[in-house]
Amino acid sequence: MPDLPLSPGSSIGILGGGQLGRMLSQAASRLGFDVVILDPEDNSPAGRVSRGQIVAAYDNETALDVMGRVCDVVTFEFENVPASSVERLARAGALVAPGPMALAVAQDRVSEKTYLNAVGATTVDFAAVDDLEGLRAALDVIGLPALLKTRREGYDGKGQVWIRRKGDARRAWEAIGARPAILEARADFERELSIIAARGRDGAVGLYPPGENVHEGGILRTTTAPATLSPAVSRRARAIAEAVLDGLDYVGVMGIELFALKGGRLLVNEIAPRVHNTGHWTQDGCACDQFEQHIRAIAGWPLGSFEAQARVEMTNLLGPEVEQWRTASGEAGACVHLYGKGEARAGRKMGHINRVLGPARQARAR
Amino acid sequence: MPDLPLSPGSSIGILGGGQLGRMLSQAASRLGFDVVILDPEDNSPAGRVSRGQIVAAYDNETALDVMGRVCDVVTFEFENVPASSVERLARAGALVAPGPMALAVAQDRVSEKTYLNAVGATTVDFAAVDDLEGLRAALDVIGLPALLKTRREGYDGKGQVWIRRKGDARRAWEAIGARPAILEARADFERELSIIAARGRDGAVGLYPPGENVHEGGILRTTTAPATLSPAVSRRARAIAEAVLDGLDYVGVMGIELFALKGGRLLVNEIAPRVHNTGHWTQDGCACDQFEQHIRAIAGWPLGSFEAQARVEMTNLLGPEVEQWRTASGEAGACVHLYGKGEARAGRKMGHINRVLGPARQARAR
Repeated sequence: MPDLPLSPGSSIGILGGGQLGRMLSQAASRLGFDVVILDPEDNSPAGRVSRGQIVAAYDNETALDVMGRVCDVVTFEFENVPASSVERLARAGALVAPGPMALAVAQDRVSEKTYLNAVGATTVDFAAVDDLEGLRAALDVIGLPALLKTRREGYDGKGQVWIRRKGDARRAWEAIGARPAILEARADFERELSIIAARGRDGAVGLYPPGENVHEGGILRTTTAPATLSPAVSRRARAIAEAVLDGLDYVGVMGIELFALKGGRLLVNEIAPRVHNTGHWTQDGCACDQFEQHIRAIAGWPLGSFEAQARVEMTNLLGPEVEQWRTASGEAGACVHLYGKGEARAGRKMGHINRVLGPARQARAR
Repeated sequence: MPDLPLSPGSSIGILGGGQLGRMLSQAASRLGFDVVILDPEDNSPAGRVSRGQIVAAYDNETALDVMGRVCDVVTFEFENVPASSVERLARAGALVAPGPMALAVAQDRVSEKTYLNAVGATTVDFAAVDDLEGLRAALDVIGLPALLKTRREGYDGKGQVWIRRKGDARRAWEAIGARPAILEARADFERELSIIAARGRDGAVGLYPPGENVHEGGILRTTTAPATLSPAVSRRARAIAEAVLDGLDYVGVMGIELFALKGGRLLVNEIAPRVHNTGHWTQDGCACDQFEQHIRAIAGWPLGSFEAQARVEMTNLLGPEVEQWRTASGEAGACVHLYGKGEARAGRKMGHINRVLGPARQARAR
């Protein structure tokens, strides 16, 4: 096990070479760490800005053994890391953060919601669904409309389907591949918010001021932060962050998506045990962004500041929208972030623009 | 010749793999460019965060040919790039920025001061010195004390010696290696300031609010920015930046070190045709830092904002001072930047800390 806090010059491993890995790698480099990426795609966006990349599958045992020996701490940019890979890395000598408990909870939507409710972070009503008969029974309990999602995997709106009439049960069950699922009640929400929180190895928890999100077709379009929240809602957001991260003995940054109901009630929609698209605004709104915050946490450094210095609107550039760099590059207050991805396929996250709207008016939520 | 503005996905080459190359590379990556470093030292600080590194001398013709073919634009992190290397890169098809004229002027202290005075950017009195006899004659004109420097090379106080008595002429001449030199009068300055300015391919010139520098033993210790300047001095700084950059048809960021005399007169001490240590504060004080500004300029993008959002004190971490990361990492408002250098030799620039002092009070100088 490495000595903590990890000294500059130590190596940090990242499973996943996409844009989140790339921005984590850049933050780690700023703090003087060397970074090694594991990704099956050669010359991945993250690999191109890192000391090295191991090109292999995420469950390749030789690759994991090398990674575990070479790196002092290993983290990941996506939550579907096989549990066996985490065990293998730990056996080879690396600390892995966030740990196996957070992964297990986040990989299964039923475990996730069960955990959340257990620590007092309320969610919509839900039921586990194992077969078509179970789905029909669940619809009687949950009511209509209801959202059927696979228990595992699926992101950006994939692997989920709305059921509006009881007669649609079979079609929905087949649409998600007739796999173990969760049926969720609809949340009658006013706004979608998210919390980007971090917990250090010493147990300290902090959170950035929550942002307000706009999704289209299940994909995030914009986050505007800090969102305007009453003091009571801010306190509730902090209580959720503390309960969720403490309960998992979590180390690192977590994204927590919320439904804000009329009257100020907050329901947790889902959690992601990693840096999060709705936290990209911190790059140009805060002295310490979510990527540095994550690296600080997993390296055993003290957490950085969570204070917002500016109000920022973050806009994702999807597919061909990446061409907006041409106009945005000439726009005052627009910070362009591009991921170095080649093909601009429809819906692919190619970059984002952080537009600084002005100084932060809201007191920090920490 | 590449089409401008350069599209994301294009390749930018950087001659020199030290900390300036590293921070330039990180800025280029944020904008979606791939970066190739040329440096004789394998696994250089910049090479470790870039797509690739060519390990070769700066005048290696094969290396330059590869660099020129692979990269659309090539720039450098130090001013002593051989003119023949720039020609070779251009012949292989790359744009080189800043151009040969800026390099020629900056590489020779006599050419530099002659140029500066010609465009109205006043310097101390000086005389070219070719031999010991010439040095003695120059001392009669310049007066005592006077500073003898080699015409070419030397940085961080190397290759220069103060002469306080006429009888010290021979010792001084030998101390600098009996090489072509410049003799400079002493500036009776109140403060050392510097301008970080940029000029785009369209001829637009901007400058960050000047900072105030403290040197020790010829090495920069701190920069505090924005410095408190009267409106008249701010205007004078802008006029100097415009004259110096326009006169060279300059493209990129330039550092201009100034002596501020009692009464507000500004003398130019020296210019560096590259990003500059006294501009590191912009990383945590401005939406667009000097590194992104340089990449924008050489890639033919519009210049970014020069506005200061925060007052920042930048402190260099020299040699073993790098260990200050331990305390600074827990200090509110301290942003730690480390360069990934191995051996912490005395005087070696290992990193810097930007301490955010508060919101910027000064109007922007642009």
